[in-house]
Amino acid sequence: MLENPFLDWIRSHTPAHPQVPLNVGDDMAAVVVGGRWAGARGWAAKSGLSGLSPQSLVLLKIDQALDQVHFDLREHSATQAGRKAVNRCLSDCAAMACLPAAVMISVALPREASEAFAQELFLACQSAAAAFDCPLVGGDTAIWDQRLVITVAAMGRSDHLPLTRSGAKAGDTLFVSGRLGGSILGRHLSFTPRIRLAEKLARTAKVHAMMDLSDGLAQDLPRLCTASGVGAIVYPHLLPIHEDAQTLAGRDQIPAGLHALADGEDYELLFAIDPNDVPTIIPISEQGGVPLTAIGTITGEKVLVLETESGVKMPWPKAGWEHGGE
Amino acid sequence: MLENPFLDWIRSHTPAHPQVPLNVGDDMAAVVVGGRWAGARGWAAKSGLSGLSPQSLVLLKIDQALDQVHFDLREHSATQAGRKAVNRCLSDCAAMACLPAAVMISVALPREASEAFAQELFLACQSAAAAFDCPLVGGDTAIWDQRLVITVAAMGRSDHLPLTRSGAKAGDTLFVSGRLGGSILGRHLSFTPRIRLAEKLARTAKVHAMMDLSDGLAQDLPRLCTASGVGAIVYPHLLPIHEDAQTLAGRDQIPAGLHALADGEDYELLFAIDPNDVPTIIPISEQGGVPLTAIGTITGEKVLVLETESGVKMPWPKAGWEHGGE
Repeated sequence: MLENPFLDWIRSHTPAHPQVPLNVGDDMAAVVVGGRWAGARGWAAKSGLSGLSPQSLVLLKIDQALDQVHFDLREHSATQAGRKAVNRCLSDCAAMACLPAAVMISVALPREASEAFAQELFLACQSAAAAFDCPLVGGDTAIWDQRLVITVAAMGRSDHLPLTRSGAKAGDTLFVSGRLGGSILGRHLSFTPRIRLAEKLARTAKVHAMMDLSDGLAQDLPRLCTASGVGAIVYPHLLPIHEDAQTLAGRDQIPAGLHALADGEDYELLFAIDPNDVPTIIPISEQGGVPLTAIGTITGEKVLVLETESGVKMPWPKAGWEHGGE
Repeated sequence: MLENPFLDWIRSHTPAHPQVPLNVGDDMAAVVVGGRWAGARGWAAKSGLSGLSPQSLVLLKIDQALDQVHFDLREHSATQAGRKAVNRCLSDCAAMACLPAAVMISVALPREASEAFAQELFLACQSAAAAFDCPLVGGDTAIWDQRLVITVAAMGRSDHLPLTRSGAKAGDTLFVSGRLGGSILGRHLSFTPRIRLAEKLARTAKVHAMMDLSDGLAQDLPRLCTASGVGAIVYPHLLPIHEDAQTLAGRDQIPAGLHALADGEDYELLFAIDPNDVPTIIPISEQGGVPLTAIGTITGEKVLVLETESGVKMPWPKAGWEHGGE
């Protein structure tokens, strides 16, 4: 079973709800909580977020991290596993440019796990959330004879409307934060969710669409383009290649640029902004220590292409990390 | 590792947060979302819920259901597993007398699970939530070579303050809803969360403390008493014994009354009310089809005792379902 077709099926089986302006299809769902609760039903938007006040919304997300899928306890510590589990979920808060207001953790512990292991895991989760002043508000622990499962749910809030995947416009400049590729060498465990960067971007520039790169640019950009009803041209020679991608290329002979394009778990931001706003975000890039790189342009034609420095156009690669697939 | 000592450790390692008036120790956590978000920090109560408006709060809970722990796919269907996973979490909404405003589902599917199985599971989860007009707002699916994990997170809202475990007072009358014991014969899969009943109770009577019975009265009442700083006398001859407990007693020779006291997963309400309010809740019991039974009295002495019809006092049983223990 592949994840993407199942996600499409879920989308088609999720009815509209008057209190839910954003459901399946963005990095978090948005739920209306503002106004007097009883009797408030029915007034919320059927037209997405328009007309809603940011204060009336909470954003919600659930995400799991599984032993030997997302981390591997044969190599990684409880601290690494817990930190990754929380930060994966917080990266979705970054994707929507909201601030995490609470996280909850559910843990299925293998029977042989020690109390010290469980405590280390809890403290790692708590400290990952606390890095963003986000409280861990309870959780659930069970013990079983299978491998470790850490499930994290986050609630986000913001005083501006959340950014979504669906607002990119033809002519927008496409940006990524950080450097891409080779995260498997360790960054997939130690990355910092781009919450502060996303917040600055949302306040500074007209960000039309944003998401986080969890499955790799090759898979994630098509999602942003589909949600926005647009296409894109990406210039592979502009891709900010991480040194880990270079290291990996030296080992597996796959070009570093292809790693940057197709590797998953970068947890960087991908966003489309009004080209007139490009100058306004340059200082953010320079101050924050996280580079922001223009990698392409949004187009009105619903096709994704790679265009080399010499102007040769290539079809979009199929590669990327399809969960559940091979 | 036993769950209760770990929970105590977690409690002692959870710092206060100005936006979190209720954290570990109740059936759900409460988080302040009202008011203007940025800059609102610091004003929220350090004194629990007092002074807060119900509209400024959301209630949050995460809960997992594991194959061969909470259900068993060798005997139970995807529909049964999904329904139970969601209803366990919704039962916590009942415990706090709030309405579920959104649920999220995370599923770790065994690699051999078919698409039909995944779809059946999704629809069961969706329909369990929809029974309370609660939308399923996205989720997460992963595939692995271990058993099924269903993790559910719920957000609750209410236009009255949530009920907690901590308000019981000496002299209160102690009630349970429904009938207790023997849920293992099937009710643990098919129960109805007492959301509507809890809502009616909260509107009608001065409910001082409430929780849901998930681990059995023998274990859960001490939690309510500890949270409230009180004790209780329970009259075992008044316990409403479910016919399943009778059936089970016929098989295992353990008295049905002990099943009613010690069996887990009743998912009924346990609550303490002002004795003057007892008459006001009688009509609720008569209309709703769910019996409400007075089973004892809250006492100022921090001890739990069983008192037989002939006035003999017995110590509180140690039995009950301690997760992770034997």
